[in-house]
Amino acid sequence: MLPERVRIVEVGPRDGLQNESTPVPTPVKLEFIRALADAGLRHIEATSFVHPKSVPQLADADEVARQLPQSETCTFSALVPNERGIERALAAGITRIAVFTAASETFTQKNIGMTIDESISVFRGVIRRALEGGLTARAYVSTSFVCPYEGPISKEKVRQVADRLLEIGADEIAVSDTIGAAAPTDVVAVVEHLLEKHPPDRIALHFHNTYGTAPANVLAGLQLGISTFDGSAGGLGGCPFAPGASGNVATEDLVYMFDRMGIETGVRLEKVVAAAAIIAAVLKRPLHSAQWRRLQTCG
Amino acid sequence: MLPERVRIVEVGPRDGLQNESTPVPTPVKLEFIRALADAGLRHIEATSFVHPKSVPQLADADEVARQLPQSETCTFSALVPNERGIERALAAGITRIAVFTAASETFTQKNIGMTIDESISVFRGVIRRALEGGLTARAYVSTSFVCPYEGPISKEKVRQVADRLLEIGADEIAVSDTIGAAAPTDVVAVVEHLLEKHPPDRIALHFHNTYGTAPANVLAGLQLGISTFDGSAGGLGGCPFAPGASGNVATEDLVYMFDRMGIETGVRLEKVVAAAAIIAAVLKRPLHSAQWRRLQTCG
Repeated sequence: MLPERVRIVEVGPRDGLQNESTPVPTPVKLEFIRALADAGLRHIEATSFVHPKSVPQLADADEVARQLPQSETCTFSALVPNERGIERALAAGITRIAVFTAASETFTQKNIGMTIDESISVFRGVIRRALEGGLTARAYVSTSFVCPYEGPISKEKVRQVADRLLEIGADEIAVSDTIGAAAPTDVVAVVEHLLEKHPPDRIALHFHNTYGTAPANVLAGLQLGISTFDGSAGGLGGCPFAPGASGNVATEDLVYMFDRMGIETGVRLEKVVAAAAIIAAVLKRPLHSAQWRRLQTCG
Repeated sequence: MLPERVRIVEVGPRDGLQNESTPVPTPVKLEFIRALADAGLRHIEATSFVHPKSVPQLADADEVARQLPQSETCTFSALVPNERGIERALAAGITRIAVFTAASETFTQKNIGMTIDESISVFRGVIRRALEGGLTARAYVSTSFVCPYEGPISKEKVRQVADRLLEIGADEIAVSDTIGAAAPTDVVAVVEHLLEKHPPDRIALHFHNTYGTAPANVLAGLQLGISTFDGSAGGLGGCPFAPGASGNVATEDLVYMFDRMGIETGVRLEKVVAAAAIIAAVLKRPLHSAQWRRLQTCG
């Protein structure tokens, strides 16, 4: 039995934009975010409170966060890497944070300059502070299937990291195929192992479409009862620290597949494409979704 | 249980090239075909004996067919639309033909100017002549899921057409998502209905990736025990008579997913990409596969 409805977490404004070298002006980001909310997306990762030097594109995080639309139906989250970040998030009025570590020791070291243990110590303090402030937290586990440095990652390692992140107060683990190299068999192995210990509503799946397997991976996730999937409008995104990573799976392509499968999303496909067009106009390049290519080719 | 091995039918030289307006010289086509065979592909649809005016790109069908590599392991097929086509195929020494009709009456009329009934009458004669000459035949059922004119197609209609094509001597039905609009639920409905009457080895799945669902559709097919999938190197292809159709699912993307799932293909991914590069150099445009994009982006 497939889920009757799914929750799409839109990560375009954060994961999508963070690697784009063309600066996107703050008002354009806010226009993008408003358009995404208008498309029916109810969970939007809006920005990141990482150090501006690490991700210059998101150096305007405080400003973006402060100007987010007031919405009773839409949750806006922000990535928070450390104690400094959570203070910025609280000051800006963000209501949900996302922390990020990985299932690969080497990747964690290269991506955030800490061991996995160290990162969890940091996030323990960050999430405690968030919960005290009435915020909620999701946690990314990057390289949950394949690491660009270590190769295949064991399902045991993924679950160990997920266990600890849930213990310290995250309410959702975004199991992430950072370099987009997983196939459905990988998804089944890792997710089934997680489901032995955790209910499906604790697990989100975050796929990149680097090797073209993301849609099949989403189907594998659905078949295991997972109903939260990350997407990025226009297939924006990648990871500068993950060689070969390309865009996130496109939100509009997810919406198409779910719609056609009779799975409710609450999201309007054509409005997601319209939102992506706002960014495409600034980047001056075609985007990577099937919908985008289709509409470009055929008018 | 997923199949342990799959058979990939490479349709790039025919379905891939037929809509390209940039003329590809005959020697380049033959180089492409040789490279595909060298990549380990054992079933290659090499050309089409349609009227040169319908598909100018394949007007050199006789010449291509006559110069195909001599191979004991590789089968080269050609599309044959009518009695004239089968005579040309026999004269050129082709050993396997493909005929094509559709599950949608409107599409069949617009695509080949006949009713489905009329097309099957024609193919009865064509396949009889082929079998008498020691050839074998596959049959495409276009628009097996969604028709650009009629919308969703019923599984009963697909099976009726498939039944008749098998009765007149085709050994394999290529169930085709001509406009690339199907989702896994469509695949399950149509293929399960076919499997009530026919064994899985009579069914091949032919997906286009127009809406980005092809990889998920392949997974759905695998899960039903289907083990023959059509692909086109570089994601070449489309259909001039099907508005909105874009490329076939890319052979190299299929190979990546199958490899990673531990499903044997006998095909070497990097050699498929090298084969596609031969055509990309003539078309002077980027190709549509995830592998192509990945290798372009990251060197």
